[in-house]
Amino acid sequence: MSQITREQLEALTREQLTFAKAYNFVIEKLAEHEAWIRLPANGEFLRPGGTISGPAMMALADYTVYAAVLATIGPVELAVTTSLNINFLHKPAPGDLVAKARLIKLGKRLAVGDVPIYAVDDDTMVAHATATYSIPPHREVTP
Amino acid sequence: MSQITREQLEALTREQLTFAKAYNFVIEKLAEHEAWIRLPANGEFLRPGGTISGPAMMALADYTVYAAVLATIGPVELAVTTSLNINFLHKPAPGDLVAKARLIKLGKRLAVGDVPIYAVDDDTMVAHATATYSIPPHREVTP
Amino acid sequence: MSQITREQLEALTREQLTFAKAYNFVIEKLAEHEAWIRLPANGEFLRPGGTISGPAMMALADYTVYAAVLATIGPVELAVTTSLNINFLHKPAPGDLVAKARLIKLGKRLAVGDVPIYAVDDDTMVAHATATYSIPPHREVTP
Amino acid sequence: MSQITREQLEALTREQLTFAKAYNFVIEKLAEHEAWIRLPANGEFLRPGGTISGPAMMALADYTVYAAVLATIGPVELAVTTSLNINFLHKPAPGDLVAKARLIKLGKRLAVGDVPIYAVDDDTMVAHATATYSIPPHREVTP
Repeated sequence: MSQITREQLEALTREQLTFAKAYNFVIEKLAEHEAWIRLPANGEFLRPGGTISGPAMMALADYTVYAAVLATIGPVELAVTTSLNINFLHKPAPGDLVAKARLIKLGKRLAVGDVPIYAVDDDTMVAHATATYSIPPHREVTP
Repeated sequence: MSQITREQLEALTREQLTFAKAYNFVIEKLAEHEAWIRLPANGEFLRPGGTISGPAMMALADYTVYAAVLATIGPVELAVTTSLNINFLHKPAPGDLVAKARLIKLGKRLAVGDVPIYAVDDDTMVAHATATYSIPPHREVTP
Repeated sequence: MSQITREQLEALTREQLTFAKAYNFVIEKLAEHEAWIRLPANGEFLRPGGTISGPAMMALADYTVYAAVLATIGPVELAVTTSLNINFLHKPAPGDLVAKARLIKLGKRLAVGDVPIYAVDDDTMVAHATATYSIPPHREVTP
Repeated sequence: MSQITREQLEALTREQLTFAKAYNFVIEKLAEHEAWIRLPANGEFLRPGGTISGPAMMALADYTVYAAVLATIGPVELAVTTSLNINFLHKPAPGDLVAKARLIKLGKRLAVGDVPIYAVDDDTMVAHATATYSIPPHREVTP
């Protein structure tokens, strides 16, 4: 069961994660240790040759791990990314992408998420990221 | 000497790198194996606690290595990022950031850039990235 | 079906990959896009606190992706690692480890492998790596 | 000034870091936020084509950041690597390698080191790594 509702995450995103709001991320799934987020196709992010931009995929990966962390430990606003690694695998055809984050570590201080990103239309894995979040020592939970 | 002028890179960015245009990146330096790009402070990218967002820094790192590649081999539109790794080091105070990319490898097929990112005001290194670009086998140079 | 037999990979390892030979890696599985390699428990690699050393796990991850590449395209001796990223997740209890590599990209020039590493005894994921190999343009296959 | 002497680090390595002992690492420099470690040329680590093996360079990078952490905060045995990223840049000619680690972050909980690796003979940067260490909350210092 997710420790944060879709509505809570949407409100938090609207108020505080302005970059995520700009990308129009759609929350597809929130569960313990897991989150799926969709990036709607959007001309704004196209690169030469029509590929969705790397930066859009990096933002998607980062946000999806953030969502998985919050889904697991509740709305900890001060969780921050400490590192992110991404491999771009295949040039996606135009269309929506979906990132599927799974937490492979959830310690007292660090959480690590594994995040394959797929093209929604043909299910190709177009990128693969891992991201580490630092979790504040005293978790201040916003109701 | 740079193989691409500031004006050429600005035109390329305006026409084709819409994500970079959205960030209002400012070209500070273009030289062989090197590029400096400034990210102007911008409320849109703030996270809870006032930190410039990780995704904005990732986009900055990616674009700065792209600029360094083009400054070295000329305007190769089809150079694409194959991987990027970033460590977030210190929460920047509000203010502009500048990324300083240096190519540490420029092979026939791959270029690797090392990119520390600094807060302009106090010169703190706030993040450090490395990014790899794939260079197309037959470089089609746009005049 | 694997494009290299266990005996071929063992011979190649014995003759040319002296580091892998030193770790006594055991080939558990070779298949298209996939390889499983076991690292036998070995006092030589213990760190303070009894954890298997990070470097041993990095060598294991690297070798396992190499095995997956060879299992897929045949015995290409000149495939070389271009980058590797690893996250250490949980301190393994003493005992064997097994790395399970899956190729998530196999292009003409680059192959990318995703490699979770597990403790054999309790199936905990103790580390997670991704590694990129460069594949030579003219594949010279050794019979 | 280093918070650990060369003799202390050598003793610690001999007793507890058996992998580092096997590589015959030579301590070249220990200073605040900095360490230089040399990897003597050694046939054991050669790959097909004569390149020093990737795993040997990864072990070197990891150990050099560890040395830089200990040089800065004293002999904290329980500092452990949480992640490492490496790019292999140029195939080194046979000969010694030297890694030059500099800590780009030293927080209460995490330290991040930047580690270019050079061929000693011709000063080429042959690889570049970053490694993150977790520092235990209660530092138990061994005299």
